[in-house]
Amino acid sequence: MGQTLTEKILDDHLVEGDLEPGEEIGIEIDQTLSQDTTGTMVWLQFEALEMDEVQTELAAQYCDHQTYQFDFKNTDDHRFLRSAAGTYGAYFSRPGNGICHNVHKENFAAPGKTLLGSDSHTPTPGGLGQLAIGAGGIDIAVAMGGGPYYVEMPEVVNVRLEGELPEWATAKDIILELLRRLSVKGGVGKVLEYTGPGAETLSVPERTTITNMGTELGATSSIFPTDEKTREWMASFDREDEFVDLSPDEDAEYADEIVVDLSDLEPLISKPSMPDNVVPVREVAGEKVEQVVVGSCTNGAYEDILPAAKMLEGRQINPGTEMIVAPGSKQASEMLAREGWTAEMMAAGVNFSEATCGACIGIGHVPASDSVSLRTFNRNFEGRSGIEDDSVYLCSPEVAAAAALKGEIVDPRDLADELGDLEDPGFEMATKYTAGYGEGDVDIITPEEAIDDELIKGPNISSVPVKDPIDADVGGETLLKMGDNITTDHIIPATSDILKFRSNIERLSEFTLSRIDDTFSERAKATDSSVLVAGENYGQGSSREHAAMCPMFLGVEAVLAQSFARIHKANLFNFGLIPLTIDEETYDRIEEGDDVEIVDDARAGVESGQEEFTIRVNDDWEATAHLDASERERRTLAAGGKLSLTKQRHGDSGAASPADD
Amino acid sequence: MGQTLTEKILDDHLVEGDLEPGEEIGIEIDQTLSQDTTGTMVWLQFEALEMDEVQTELAAQYCDHQTYQFDFKNTDDHRFLRSAAGTYGAYFSRPGNGICHNVHKENFAAPGKTLLGSDSHTPTPGGLGQLAIGAGGIDIAVAMGGGPYYVEMPEVVNVRLEGELPEWATAKDIILELLRRLSVKGGVGKVLEYTGPGAETLSVPERTTITNMGTELGATSSIFPTDEKTREWMASFDREDEFVDLSPDEDAEYADEIVVDLSDLEPLISKPSMPDNVVPVREVAGEKVEQVVVGSCTNGAYEDILPAAKMLEGRQINPGTEMIVAPGSKQASEMLAREGWTAEMMAAGVNFSEATCGACIGIGHVPASDSVSLRTFNRNFEGRSGIEDDSVYLCSPEVAAAAALKGEIVDPRDLADELGDLEDPGFEMATKYTAGYGEGDVDIITPEEAIDDELIKGPNISSVPVKDPIDADVGGETLLKMGDNITTDHIIPATSDILKFRSNIERLSEFTLSRIDDTFSERAKATDSSVLVAGENYGQGSSREHAAMCPMFLGVEAVLAQSFARIHKANLFNFGLIPLTIDEETYDRIEEGDDVEIVDDARAGVESGQEEFTIRVNDDWEATAHLDASERERRTLAAGGKLSLTKQRHGDSGAASPADD
Repeated sequence: MGQTLTEKILDDHLVEGDLEPGEEIGIEIDQTLSQDTTGTMVWLQFEALEMDEVQTELAAQYCDHQTYQFDFKNTDDHRFLRSAAGTYGAYFSRPGNGICHNVHKENFAAPGKTLLGSDSHTPTPGGLGQLAIGAGGIDIAVAMGGGPYYVEMPEVVNVRLEGELPEWATAKDIILELLRRLSVKGGVGKVLEYTGPGAETLSVPERTTITNMGTELGATSSIFPTDEKTREWMASFDREDEFVDLSPDEDAEYADEIVVDLSDLEPLISKPSMPDNVVPVREVAGEKVEQVVVGSCTNGAYEDILPAAKMLEGRQINPGTEMIVAPGSKQASEMLAREGWTAEMMAAGVNFSEATCGACIGIGHVPASDSVSLRTFNRNFEGRSGIEDDSVYLCSPEVAAAAALKGEIVDPRDLADELGDLEDPGFEMATKYTAGYGEGDVDIITPEEAIDDELIKGPNISSVPVKDPIDADVGGETLLKMGDNITTDHIIPATSDILKFRSNIERLSEFTLSRIDDTFSERAKATDSSVLVAGENYGQGSSREHAAMCPMFLGVEAVLAQSFARIHKANLFNFGLIPLTIDEETYDRIEEGDDVEIVDDARAGVESGQEEFTIRVNDDWEATAHLDASERERRTLAAGGKLSLTKQRHGDSGAASPADD
Repeated sequence: MGQTLTEKILDDHLVEGDLEPGEEIGIEIDQTLSQDTTGTMVWLQFEALEMDEVQTELAAQYCDHQTYQFDFKNTDDHRFLRSAAGTYGAYFSRPGNGICHNVHKENFAAPGKTLLGSDSHTPTPGGLGQLAIGAGGIDIAVAMGGGPYYVEMPEVVNVRLEGELPEWATAKDIILELLRRLSVKGGVGKVLEYTGPGAETLSVPERTTITNMGTELGATSSIFPTDEKTREWMASFDREDEFVDLSPDEDAEYADEIVVDLSDLEPLISKPSMPDNVVPVREVAGEKVEQVVVGSCTNGAYEDILPAAKMLEGRQINPGTEMIVAPGSKQASEMLAREGWTAEMMAAGVNFSEATCGACIGIGHVPASDSVSLRTFNRNFEGRSGIEDDSVYLCSPEVAAAAALKGEIVDPRDLADELGDLEDPGFEMATKYTAGYGEGDVDIITPEEAIDDELIKGPNISSVPVKDPIDADVGGETLLKMGDNITTDHIIPATSDILKFRSNIERLSEFTLSRIDDTFSERAKATDSSVLVAGENYGQGSSREHAAMCPMFLGVEAVLAQSFARIHKANLFNFGLIPLTIDEETYDRIEEGDDVEIVDDARAGVESGQEEFTIRVNDDWEATAHLDASERERRTLAAGGKLSLTKQRHGDSGAASPADD
């Protein structure tokens, strides 16, 4: 039987388990990636492992979320990250050099390699045949220590693309169409493997727009085969030698197949406030737009911004609309500047920003109150833009530029009709990147060029909290009962006033779940032990492990939900919180304030492989909760989390390597 | 007897008083300028005047301090300012279009005209013969209403420049030399009028660097005559028709003369944390530098940044140093981008920012803890960068670029020797600006193109507080005793987390004097009435009137200081706080917590022209305090401030015009 591309790469990297969907496998990691909001914790955890040097082929540390450095803590974090990269042998990409996914894709991503990253959009380089997975920071730290990464073997689904994109439709519309069809839960437990004649028509930057936003489907990863287009793209970065020809076997068997005929697509838009709330642009045309932002890891490449620049050339944006362009990498910024496009965009009224994640996570360019913002980003969760009750729409750069010109949402086909002289700019590839990482380029400091050999910690960088092993008695007050699709942004908001404390768990934990209930952290601190209750898909969104670490710090012992998002569930194991699945009836019966206790010996049950636990509510009624966990996850959980486990093993064996974890 | 240039312009605009130094004069204002941190209050006050339209030849509203829009309140403010400009007939410069002084200079400043601006660096266009003065927002609102501006007739001092700048010395070094000689108090009550053969050698951008930073000398304004260089510079902006030939009479009499021989100058630097702490760069060479920022209203012109760009071309900055370039205007950004310099700077490792005040006021790019930041700005007051205990140095773009290359402070002459191939880039003028305000340019919305005809107020924009007339009994607890040179940054910090409340006085006032004592606002609220005690030069620095409005809101009734900075003293009158001068002995005797009462009937004394007031401390001892105030200032003070006075007059007469104030 033939193999899918995903299976081939996994087979090459398999160190434990079998490639059976649903079974846990351990894979070797070739490359790791971390950014500045998750990276400080990655390196503090790596420090706690007491190893001398990163063990992967390549580790890269980026500074992209907090590039505005509006607090000295951000700047201190960047300095700490530089010192950590230098001390332990990682590449360091400086603030201003761009978003991790873009810079990694341009400089390091390689077909057939595995990449583990502490950011949920890590799958981006799947567009050039790399198998890339987002995980919690502790997983990255362990992988950098040479340990395998454990994950449930995903189902591999074939997304077969037929036909060609018509005028004004883009790669963004392909992934929006998939979100429309499959919803934000449609990819959970799956790798989406793109094939077919339509896939062959797409360039690497278009493919990475799709693989990037596969995260919004909940997918473990997304991947394209490599081809001549991949080779040419890598050659344009002087990296042709890293090209590998990769494709699924002709007789590969997929768990499912989805067919999208590209020629059927039209400009689409995701309405507030969920990425799968997708409709044709024409359906919301006429909505007044006060802000347009082009950029992000989804649409921040040179080739993504170029069409918008061409549309703006010689024109003026609407006076009632502010337009910000923030390229995804300095490479893109420099190319646009060198070719004159930056000047043209400025002339049209664009506020041209640093290369940064920035506005996508609510750091800078927060929309005005009661206003619509159109963004080429990948997420529009409520409040993520930095203001509650926001109205953020997601779309292609072409739709964004059209809205900036018109001052309202408009299908670019209709704007073209209206203006008469506006043509589809098409998708033009750079044949040669004129800038980029090379020997002596200060924007990426190589391990050999490192200027630090010890960690530099500012006053806001504290040591990592370590949990005790779990007790026989687990339970406590239900401090919060939440609905479906609670995101990690709800659990720990990523706005700048909060995330600046990300290396200081005690302070950061004060903001835990504050978006839902701003008394939460105080109530949690006043309670010895507690549990959380939630509906479906708890913990979707960003991979940030603080969403598990902060509840742990506040004494939450278990989360009872109808279902969990994959990365967050792994983070719960990693920080010693028990993720229990409950049915709808149980969910409906439990009220906020209820006392929920696990009747069984929790420690023994977790260790022994027990799957059903009896919970007793208010000493009044009982129900069954399920623990779906691998043997490894159970070991981790029982120990009080991955760090506790790894440290215990160090203590037991004296060995520095966590590779046996 | 001949006239100075300053006297000529004042004579042309005089509506009240005589041009006798120290006497109060009232002058007609041709142009006004406001920015986004002071502007919301300007327009809320203008709204309170209940007039239909701006009465000056030109009013311009800029968005420059909060362009990163970290909070929706910033974005709401920008929208409110656009709506106010549109409603009342002002020009509106959009966020991203640059710093008010740079954009005003490029587009509107005109020789011989008067300009009043709610920003302390308003004197910038003195470099092209405009008499420009910084004032409180209420003064701007009244001027926009057609009322004269009242100011003590300054002494006019001649700064005679001889010789020519040697290699690597710049206009920045001229003003740093004056700060070294005269100190931050050396210009108080004066207009500095630059003449001589050395002045003739300087271009307009160089002259405006000097006039801009005259504010740090405490000067009321600074001005250069106009000449062929002025005409050519204006022609490069297609504004030659606004050129006027202006110079002092040959037999003009000056109050004082200062001679600077430019050929004696060398690269200078202002050490932390006062702009007059100036030494030769060589004296501090070798100091490790972690951050370099080029830009600001002092050195943010195209011509200012060009030398730094040339120095960086083909080189890489030091890996331990971050370098940010934030042009002063989009015009400068666009020119640099169009000519390829932006790409070169990016290639060298520069993080190229939006055009913004940004880092200069602690909004973004805050230095790391315990680190040195070199900036081409005009102020390095402690904490202004956004971190307490900062180490900010001020210097020219050339010295900044040299430090970025070397990673430590270095005299560029020594770096040139070391590198062998580094030459003084010189000061090259643009012959033609390829971008700028013109019909239909969306970056400046003209009154004719306005898109708003009513005010748009977000939820954080509240109405302005109005104080009652002062009582017969004035006094209270000494809530704080401060030292010399307390800045308005101490009184109300301008960092982003605080200034976002600038249109919401109740909330903003919680931060009053928090940098000195973070219990201040709570203690003030718990006290019925109170006074402040300070040493010399109280209230220096920024013009922000919140530094008077917030203490007023908190119940402070009087400030007793050894001396006051000019703009802040005017702001105290404008908001109904009595500024009393005390001698050193009295200052030394009063302790924090002492009860200080004015023995006389304060209301009657203020109104009748009484200059000496007896203060009684703790019912124990007495001293004399002086009130130095014009008749107009006394009327204002007695009424409870300018707004109260203007509103009372409206009430009395039914007239809408405050022109009789």
